Amino acid sequence: MKNPSKIGVGVIGTGRIGKLHIEHLSQIIPDAELIAICSLDTETAEIFAEQFNIPKVTSDYRTLLDDSQIDAVIVASSTDTHVEICQAAAEAGKHIFCEKPIALDLEQINETLRIVEKAGVKFQVGFNRRFDANFRRVREAVASGEIGEPHILRITSRDPAPPPIEYVKVSGGIFLDMTIHDFDMARYLIGDEVVEVYAVGCVRVDPKIGEVGDIDTTIITLRFQNGVLATIDNSREAVYGYDQRVEVFGSKGMVAAGNPLTDTVTFSGSEGSRTASPPDFFVERYKAAYLSELQAFIQCIQEGTQPPVTGADGRAPIVMGYAALKSLRENRPVLLSEIL
Amino acid sequence: MKNPSKIGVGVIGTGRIGKLHIEHLSQIIPDAELIAICSLDTETAEIFAEQFNIPKVTSDYRTLLDDSQIDAVIVASSTDTHVEICQAAAEAGKHIFCEKPIALDLEQINETLRIVEKAGVKFQVGFNRRFDANFRRVREAVASGEIGEPHILRITSRDPAPPPIEYVKVSGGIFLDMTIHDFDMARYLIGDEVVEVYAVGCVRVDPKIGEVGDIDTTIITLRFQNGVLATIDNSREAVYGYDQRVEVFGSKGMVAAGNPLTDTVTFSGSEGSRTASPPDFFVERYKAAYLSELQAFIQCIQEGTQPPVTGADGRAPIVMGYAALKSLRENRPVLLSEIL
Amino acid sequence: MKNPSKIGVGVIGTGRIGKLHIEHLSQIIPDAELIAICSLDTETAEIFAEQFNIPKVTSDYRTLLDDSQIDAVIVASSTDTHVEICQAAAEAGKHIFCEKPIALDLEQINETLRIVEKAGVKFQVGFNRRFDANFRRVREAVASGEIGEPHILRITSRDPAPPPIEYVKVSGGIFLDMTIHDFDMARYLIGDEVVEVYAVGCVRVDPKIGEVGDIDTTIITLRFQNGVLATIDNSREAVYGYDQRVEVFGSKGMVAAGNPLTDTVTFSGSEGSRTASPPDFFVERYKAAYLSELQAFIQCIQEGTQPPVTGADGRAPIVMGYAALKSLRENRPVLLSEIL
Amino acid sequence: MKNPSKIGVGVIGTGRIGKLHIEHLSQIIPDAELIAICSLDTETAEIFAEQFNIPKVTSDYRTLLDDSQIDAVIVASSTDTHVEICQAAAEAGKHIFCEKPIALDLEQINETLRIVEKAGVKFQVGFNRRFDANFRRVREAVASGEIGEPHILRITSRDPAPPPIEYVKVSGGIFLDMTIHDFDMARYLIGDEVVEVYAVGCVRVDPKIGEVGDIDTTIITLRFQNGVLATIDNSREAVYGYDQRVEVFGSKGMVAAGNPLTDTVTFSGSEGSRTASPPDFFVERYKAAYLSELQAFIQCIQEGTQPPVTGADGRAPIVMGYAALKSLRENRPVLLSEIL
Repeated sequence: MKNPSKIGVGVIGTGRIGKLHIEHLSQIIPDAELIAICSLDTETAEIFAEQFNIPKVTSDYRTLLDDSQIDAVIVASSTDTHVEICQAAAEAGKHIFCEKPIALDLEQINETLRIVEKAGVKFQVGFNRRFDANFRRVREAVASGEIGEPHILRITSRDPAPPPIEYVKVSGGIFLDMTIHDFDMARYLIGDEVVEVYAVGCVRVDPKIGEVGDIDTTIITLRFQNGVLATIDNSREAVYGYDQRVEVFGSKGMVAAGNPLTDTVTFSGSEGSRTASPPDFFVERYKAAYLSELQAFIQCIQEGTQPPVTGADGRAPIVMGYAALKSLRENRPVLLSEIL
Repeated sequence: MKNPSKIGVGVIGTGRIGKLHIEHLSQIIPDAELIAICSLDTETAEIFAEQFNIPKVTSDYRTLLDDSQIDAVIVASSTDTHVEICQAAAEAGKHIFCEKPIALDLEQINETLRIVEKAGVKFQVGFNRRFDANFRRVREAVASGEIGEPHILRITSRDPAPPPIEYVKVSGGIFLDMTIHDFDMARYLIGDEVVEVYAVGCVRVDPKIGEVGDIDTTIITLRFQNGVLATIDNSREAVYGYDQRVEVFGSKGMVAAGNPLTDTVTFSGSEGSRTASPPDFFVERYKAAYLSELQAFIQCIQEGTQPPVTGADGRAPIVMGYAALKSLRENRPVLLSEIL
Repeated sequence: MKNPSKIGVGVIGTGRIGKLHIEHLSQIIPDAELIAICSLDTETAEIFAEQFNIPKVTSDYRTLLDDSQIDAVIVASSTDTHVEICQAAAEAGKHIFCEKPIALDLEQINETLRIVEKAGVKFQVGFNRRFDANFRRVREAVASGEIGEPHILRITSRDPAPPPIEYVKVSGGIFLDMTIHDFDMARYLIGDEVVEVYAVGCVRVDPKIGEVGDIDTTIITLRFQNGVLATIDNSREAVYGYDQRVEVFGSKGMVAAGNPLTDTVTFSGSEGSRTASPPDFFVERYKAAYLSELQAFIQCIQEGTQPPVTGADGRAPIVMGYAALKSLRENRPVLLSEIL
Repeated sequence: MKNPSKIGVGVIGTGRIGKLHIEHLSQIIPDAELIAICSLDTETAEIFAEQFNIPKVTSDYRTLLDDSQIDAVIVASSTDTHVEICQAAAEAGKHIFCEKPIALDLEQINETLRIVEKAGVKFQVGFNRRFDANFRRVREAVASGEIGEPHILRITSRDPAPPPIEYVKVSGGIFLDMTIHDFDMARYLIGDEVVEVYAVGCVRVDPKIGEVGDIDTTIITLRFQNGVLATIDNSREAVYGYDQRVEVFGSKGMVAAGNPLTDTVTFSGSEGSRTASPPDFFVERYKAAYLSELQAFIQCIQEGTQPPVTGADGRAPIVMGYAALKSLRENRPVLLSEIL
């Protein structure tokens, strides 16, 4: 029987990120109780239920919405299911943690946010990088005025290897799939809205990516309402590992987060010194951030506060993604106000 | 009922390290099944049993030794109980993982190792730092010949703050309480035996430490059988955090492990640049190492192999500690052969 | 009497850079003989002549052109005099080392380059940063294929403090005064031509800069003929010192040059660790590069080879500067082919 | 004719260090005038005289002592000539800058210091590393109390390659030839006297060094009067370059000087990141320090102040060297008071 002092949670989706949430909810977050998991992959779901002592397993997410022990759902299923599940969950009065992106269709996002708002449930979007201790420290340095008035933001974000071409095809393109994290990071670090986007891009990593209409290398310029200028660069393949650095430059100084490395060892020989690489895998890099975001979600339910990443925060990077795409196609800066 | 394919484990002791082992055994190590825990602090033990779903709780370690489901015990109780428990466990045919130090009395250690050997059980000593990924990488660089023939070893090991004076009194002194880790690290990194020790030391951190007959600052010189020279420096208080670095210098290069830092952020202002500190707490620094050593212990039982840290490895640093103490008192280098 | 085996040199201009060239020619470059210096500031010129044992001082550059002992002139006078002096020097058959920019007027540059070419004299432009050992090492890593095919170039270039407003007024604007170095660096590092420029900019450092029609903060996107994408960011004021970093990312890795620091000292305390800043002054940062470029100039005369920075190299960044200005004004990407 | 406002200087010795002093005196130090140089290698001396415009060349140092234009001599000849020249120079009323070591014989040093004191001339010893900006910054952090009360000093000093065996034979051994710099550095950084020395050492680099009675690898422990403990490690061969680092640990923090590197470039690839090595050659590493020490010498003459490195500073490391040698031979800590 559920502990009444805990938040009852159901997890929908048992992919890589779903599994991580299941682990964290069942083992580490004391204020949550994992009541049920839902997956179309019933075999994996059964294994997880066994491994993590989860009472209930289902392949129909409505079972979770009907369960009165469940206060909140974690939506970690494939992107095309988010809208339907989120809307149903809101109508069932469940609080919602939804993986990014909410959807690729702006009208669907708008509709979902309207339903969520009307239902009055908490709605948090899974921009996990905001919870990374390094980026958080950078945000604090900006918010506290430690670097004075911010002038320039630089974000580098490069994946260790491109996803399978089948995934690229349905991903919505690099801006909605990959840069979306950087768009969110830009808004988070500066604490202001972007008004204009300019993107250049090309295919350098793999011609197949070009053949399906996408690019794999891009530089994006952002202008913020408050005058800050930003540059983001992305690549689908950095052979030295997952490369995600940010730097904010302001009137009183600069704050920058570098890559963590897999060890602290230096070898010095006749050819110079060698140090380790950043991790190759996003789970390794952001494990603690995934835990923190979920803890924050449980906490905002308990304390009745606003989630730290709102529906509006989930929507804005999608708008920026469409602006970037339009900019790339028309080779001109695009105002966000031009989108929808 | 216990899963027959898993190693049944009982944990004795529920202090900081005992708790860590309990967490790891109950949540992360799939090949182990935590059957029971034992503690004189029954309240804490009950809380852990609840939190980690442990079937059995007792305040008498013999209950664990009598339990046929239990294949191995983790001895994480106070140092003065190690010998009795280890000897009884060996006689009960249980494999043993014993926290360091085995004991402060060499004769008792010898007796315990004899009993363990006679019983034919696995016996691993908890020198967790050997399992730290950074130090492990250094050892590999030495063992593989990457730095050629080793010439000089430097170890720095400084605690963030001295322990309570009541602890200092019964700790056996800095050499047996703190340097013991560095003595083990020295043997581990070089893969050879030390033959002579010279120690200088003084009281710089807190006069109270001197009043109870101990020192808080020391530099120790080691000579290895294979000719390598080593220097260790220790302090009971480093205001910038837990400082543990090693460096091995050889004919083809140098390999060094620095401190991990709590974040990767740099702030640059008119006064220069600032970066983070190492962690303050040993659990934060060595969490992954504590997990690895336990995994290795479970694995050596399953595979019937030699534990990676043997009884002899547990004994040698104690001998070095007594040699260092004698060296300090007599202000001369002391051969290890002079001890016992 | 001049040593016939040496290149006879005259220096025109005795400002900060002129003085540096005088020092290097008189003291360090064995294959050059400094015959005469020319300056409208005759007092300073006399002091230098005394200090560095220079036989001849004049306030009329034609005196140098008439001197048969002089094989080459260093043009380090104010920018508005470069064209006249370079053209006269070429017609007098003197080899020319001309400080950047050749001129702010493209037609004048074209005319000058025509005259120089007709005269058949060597003509090197003073883009000193190409001779910095760090940037040179980056260029080598790109040229040698060490990083594979280059994909993305990032350049950060921030001055420690803005120049006097009187200087800003006649500087030609940030793109022709400051970014010009980065435009050259971009071409140098990638070894290819830029085809399109997009610039955003604003006034963040000092409103006075805006009042005279200039900006002090900018981000510029470049597209190269070979497909490489580049981003440059500039600020007129970095409180932590002269900040000039480059990074080239490619299919096999990344090569980056960081800032040199004024010392190698780290202080670690309870607030973390502190390290030094980069130098504040461009002469301190680039002293060795100024020497190298002059040595290369003397050498190309002696060996009859092509100067390492040609007239075309001097012209291209000016074209890029005008493209950036047009881009900023019209808020659109501008093709270099649109300029002239 | 000599400029009467300048200090007239004569340099004795035209080896690597003599040449450096000649360069600095003739080109960079405005308050000095290089009047004459003296060398048994007359050919080299003539070349330098030509190259640096030095009026007088001689092979007899007495010629310099007889020259009334010469106020000060730089003694950079071979060690076995220092005593005779310094004594004669003092008696001739010349100020003296003497390269280290003053001599290898303590009685001769004592006698020389007596004569110098009686003559009332300035006497500075060439411990150039004290003038290195990095080590100077460390000293300031100790002297100012920035690190609180100092507890532990660590010095690493490793040469890139051993000297020729013929040099080793007459060098006085590693302690007097190489560690002498570290002994001086230890006294300089802590600002206190050493009372006891313990040394271990062996032959690891080259058996030939052992055959001539010397060692090439050593660790030395020092105890200071004020209670600070220090450890020095030396090797004659570090394949990654000239390795000279210091670290002072105290009650309020730690200050450390790392090695400068030959460039600021990082290459990141699938094998991790690579950075440059420290310089291989002591002149490259300490050029600026050699200049500073000479400027300080000229300044102390002009201002009538005490030289920054006194005769006593020149003597103390020799005493420490003999104590280390005695310690090594007798395998016990040796008090400095045991020497002489």
